[in-house]
Amino acid sequence: MTSPEHCATGHDGRHVVQPHKQALLKRLNRVEGQVRGIAQMVQEDRYCVDVLTQVAAVRSALDAVALQLLENHTRGCVAEAVRAERGEEAIAELMVAVKRFAR
Amino acid sequence: MTSPEHCATGHDGRHVVQPHKQALLKRLNRVEGQVRGIAQMVQEDRYCVDVLTQVAAVRSALDAVALQLLENHTRGCVAEAVRAERGEEAIAELMVAVKRFAR
Amino acid sequence: MTSPEHCATGHDGRHVVQPHKQALLKRLNRVEGQVRGIAQMVQEDRYCVDVLTQVAAVRSALDAVALQLLENHTRGCVAEAVRAERGEEAIAELMVAVKRFAR
Amino acid sequence: MTSPEHCATGHDGRHVVQPHKQALLKRLNRVEGQVRGIAQMVQEDRYCVDVLTQVAAVRSALDAVALQLLENHTRGCVAEAVRAERGEEAIAELMVAVKRFAR
Repeated sequence: MTSPEHCATGHDGRHVVQPHKQALLKRLNRVEGQVRGIAQMVQEDRYCVDVLTQVAAVRSALDAVALQLLENHTRGCVAEAVRAERGEEAIAELMVAVKRFAR
Repeated sequence: MTSPEHCATGHDGRHVVQPHKQALLKRLNRVEGQVRGIAQMVQEDRYCVDVLTQVAAVRSALDAVALQLLENHTRGCVAEAVRAERGEEAIAELMVAVKRFAR
Repeated sequence: MTSPEHCATGHDGRHVVQPHKQALLKRLNRVEGQVRGIAQMVQEDRYCVDVLTQVAAVRSALDAVALQLLENHTRGCVAEAVRAERGEEAIAELMVAVKRFAR
Repeated sequence: MTSPEHCATGHDGRHVVQPHKQALLKRLNRVEGQVRGIAQMVQEDRYCVDVLTQVAAVRSALDAVALQLLENHTRGCVAEAVRAERGEEAIAELMVAVKRFAR
């Protein structure tokens, strides 16, 4: 479900309160710590394959964040735009974002 | 070229000094800062698509780090193993790492 | 723009006439020919890297088809569902499809 | 294990008999049939999400073929080049191929 405040238009028309904002921030903080951990591994001359395994884990975590943001955006901003007959532009923008991750 | 110290076997047989270690650490520090920047954007209720653009940028930066590590590993540890007739196992391990990124 | 017939509900409620259906079929036929070409290359013992380059080309072509289908689906079926207050389920299904390509 | 004939240099220096060549050709034929099946689904106006599921299946099948080719290439041509002190160039070429799939 979209929390009611999602995609509320702020003073500059582009502010969006993410649903489950605190959980999202927590995930991002964890990713930040994981990246710091990778630097630490390289600093300590850890075996390449072990470092790579950690890089893959961070990439998965980031992808999960991206998919959460995509879903929030679709349920919030895009659905709202569709209902307001502004869907065409919103969907074009969404597809650009999807393309970046689907590659 | 592989720097001569790459894949030097340490006391536990798995330590590897990455070539261009300082440059690699610098890149990882930059990635860490970018992730912190994304958290900041979510904190400030920035527009979803702008946040997603930054997540995609971090993912690209991480992929570049991973490919650098894969290349170092192949030029160092894997090539060394092939020369020492231990290539089969080293290549099997390499392919597992490649699979994780190629998906 | 979505062609008017897109996402027309058929007798079993799931038939969808793709916009630009002939162009899409043409692209798929080309992909089929490319895959046949790869088999031919393997048959003729062509150099691995050249075969891999062709596999990458086919993958790109398939990704382009997938993104076109995702866009048609979002503009058609999903937007229609949102307008009919059935958006939640349609978006959940869309996200599953996006996840498959975003990995 | 690499079959002995892998990466045998042909008259033009680039011919390679893939290990398990018949199995590889069989997989490619199956992929070709799957692509034809997708065209058939579009022809019959099948539901977008069902078509997308099939496109994802073909992409996975192609990725598996690519990874098999990458592994054969590394075990064959690349390892041979490393042993012959021509590894540097061979690994540079390998990394270009990996990058294409890791993106």
